[in-house]
Amino acid sequence: MMGETGFVENAAALLARVRQQRPRVHCLMNTVVQKFVADGLAALGAIPSMTSSTEEVEAFARRSDALVVNLGTLDEVRRAAIRLAAVARGAGKPWIVDPVHCDYSPSRLAFARELIASGPSVVRGNASEMDIVGEANGVLKIKTGPVDELTLGRLATRVENGHPLMAQVTGTGCLSGALIAAFMAVEPDRLKAATGALLTSGIAAEIAAEQSSGPGTFEVAFRDALAALRPEDIIANARISHAQG
Amino acid sequence: MMGETGFVENAAALLARVRQQRPRVHCLMNTVVQKFVADGLAALGAIPSMTSSTEEVEAFARRSDALVVNLGTLDEVRRAAIRLAAVARGAGKPWIVDPVHCDYSPSRLAFARELIASGPSVVRGNASEMDIVGEANGVLKIKTGPVDELTLGRLATRVENGHPLMAQVTGTGCLSGALIAAFMAVEPDRLKAATGALLTSGIAAEIAAEQSSGPGTFEVAFRDALAALRPEDIIANARISHAQG
Amino acid sequence: MMGETGFVENAAALLARVRQQRPRVHCLMNTVVQKFVADGLAALGAIPSMTSSTEEVEAFARRSDALVVNLGTLDEVRRAAIRLAAVARGAGKPWIVDPVHCDYSPSRLAFARELIASGPSVVRGNASEMDIVGEANGVLKIKTGPVDELTLGRLATRVENGHPLMAQVTGTGCLSGALIAAFMAVEPDRLKAATGALLTSGIAAEIAAEQSSGPGTFEVAFRDALAALRPEDIIANARISHAQG
Repeated sequence: MMGETGFVENAAALLARVRQQRPRVHCLMNTVVQKFVADGLAALGAIPSMTSSTEEVEAFARRSDALVVNLGTLDEVRRAAIRLAAVARGAGKPWIVDPVHCDYSPSRLAFARELIASGPSVVRGNASEMDIVGEANGVLKIKTGPVDELTLGRLATRVENGHPLMAQVTGTGCLSGALIAAFMAVEPDRLKAATGALLTSGIAAEIAAEQSSGPGTFEVAFRDALAALRPEDIIANARISHAQG
Repeated sequence: MMGETGFVENAAALLARVRQQRPRVHCLMNTVVQKFVADGLAALGAIPSMTSSTEEVEAFARRSDALVVNLGTLDEVRRAAIRLAAVARGAGKPWIVDPVHCDYSPSRLAFARELIASGPSVVRGNASEMDIVGEANGVLKIKTGPVDELTLGRLATRVENGHPLMAQVTGTGCLSGALIAAFMAVEPDRLKAATGALLTSGIAAEIAAEQSSGPGTFEVAFRDALAALRPEDIIANARISHAQG
Repeated sequence: MMGETGFVENAAALLARVRQQRPRVHCLMNTVVQKFVADGLAALGAIPSMTSSTEEVEAFARRSDALVVNLGTLDEVRRAAIRLAAVARGAGKPWIVDPVHCDYSPSRLAFARELIASGPSVVRGNASEMDIVGEANGVLKIKTGPVDELTLGRLATRVENGHPLMAQVTGTGCLSGALIAAFMAVEPDRLKAATGALLTSGIAAEIAAEQSSGPGTFEVAFRDALAALRPEDIIANARISHAQG
């Protein structure tokens, strides 16, 4: 397995590759944070789309390079659109499931489990969500929080970058799911792609926090920092560790 | 009845209590300002949730400490979800109705009146909305504007804090409804709770306006100020008056 | 036809007229950018409304001075609401169609063509959208991008103001459609109205870019600049040209 230094250098190279290839990321995104996530993807250099209409989602998923399925503000129509998009994206194209608040609602938890059983590339949530969501064989599991924990079979990586102000901005978790999708669109190794995305997000947050006086200025500075982040910023600031279990 | 000074000291204590108890506030919120309201609640220290799906809203309302029903972007599904949430929240848990633009649409006005007749803790709107909405026996009526007027039976309180830039930011009225819900979750006396919320919002706006050069910078600074506001800022800046009719 | 100088002076006068008359603009706007567009209209001095419920949209369209139909996040309900609003607005009231991403989805393209055939005042899109949308007899066609191109029969105007950071902010195109509607509400000559709106937006963007360090600070500064823009800023900074074909 690649050492910490190799992982960090790889992450830096992936940031450059996203900027150059500009992947299209289709998002089935809760209605609360659609613009925040679209703007975050655009700041990274990716191209977002957001429709969740059942009549259109297949055309959008087919054109995209990666798919994000976020379960916030879930309803019957969105559930149908998610099923259509998951099929239409085509075999081999990466997709991520974000089971937002599945610990609040039994019907949402059941749907999250159905999706995870169908084999997404990644499932990402906070600790409460990931603890309840259950087994996910063959899926990269990511628990984000003060430290992000990535687990795929016996491989485990920890990303320690980030800032507490992220927890005061609605949608930073949802955005990290979308950034992971953008990185997977340019790197087939899920663990490397997700590590690159989480380092990018966490280091941008640290840079932003230095110029912030609260959650409002932080959100604005975070978006500027995402757009300005250079591969060398990742190499200089990354804090990761990993172990083979 | 408590004098002005007692009301202001009480409001300051309630701000500290919200920060400490972190109440969950479920919002049936129009789609335009969902993120703005969620971020405002998070800046205050409360925990927002936003789903308005009929299959999920009961589970979310049951877990919440207070409920906000905002009638913006109303449709058939949202109407059904509001009815379910109002029942599921359980007896005794505070809820507020915000009859946004009920002066524009007869069907929305009829629904606002139906909800108000079912006995929410508070109804809040601007002057045009509150003038048309009609009688609301036993409900705390709040007309917000340059001066906020709170009326409950023969009691009347006026909160004079705030800033004209608030009117240029879409959603400040909707957010004030959500903040009132958060304060009611920690204080059973509705009039004291709402006064605390409106003082918090109005004084944060005054602080923000000093650092703003227009509605964009104001919105960002307002969120920072909400997060940074201290109980002593309320005591130092509150401008209220009240009278028993 | 009026010369460039006349057009610019007219645009400056229209900005003052919008600020004074405060037109109501009803927006059938995609869910992603509703708040961004509402805030942009408010910064200009117009009064936005946003509902797209079929039971309410006619009441809102009837009260409005202009209508924006944006095809982002289109679905069956929104399609029905758009048809109702287009009729309810009443003859003679201006309306604009923005066929967002009609190049991605055949069903959306078909609906865009149906709407354009029914005779809106303006259709506005980016190059990919305008190239595919087809003929639009009697409709002012506007292709926005680094240079905005306005074509009405044999008349053609080019607006060269703007800034590349606009492309990194989700919704600037959608907002320009809404600003055009606001200007049409106070000026029956569509070409003059749209030129005024695009100069306003483009010059505000140039002013904002000078104070920005990325897309986050740019979005905030752009909103401040829209609110602060004076007629003399248009006269001093406008870059337009036109020709009769």
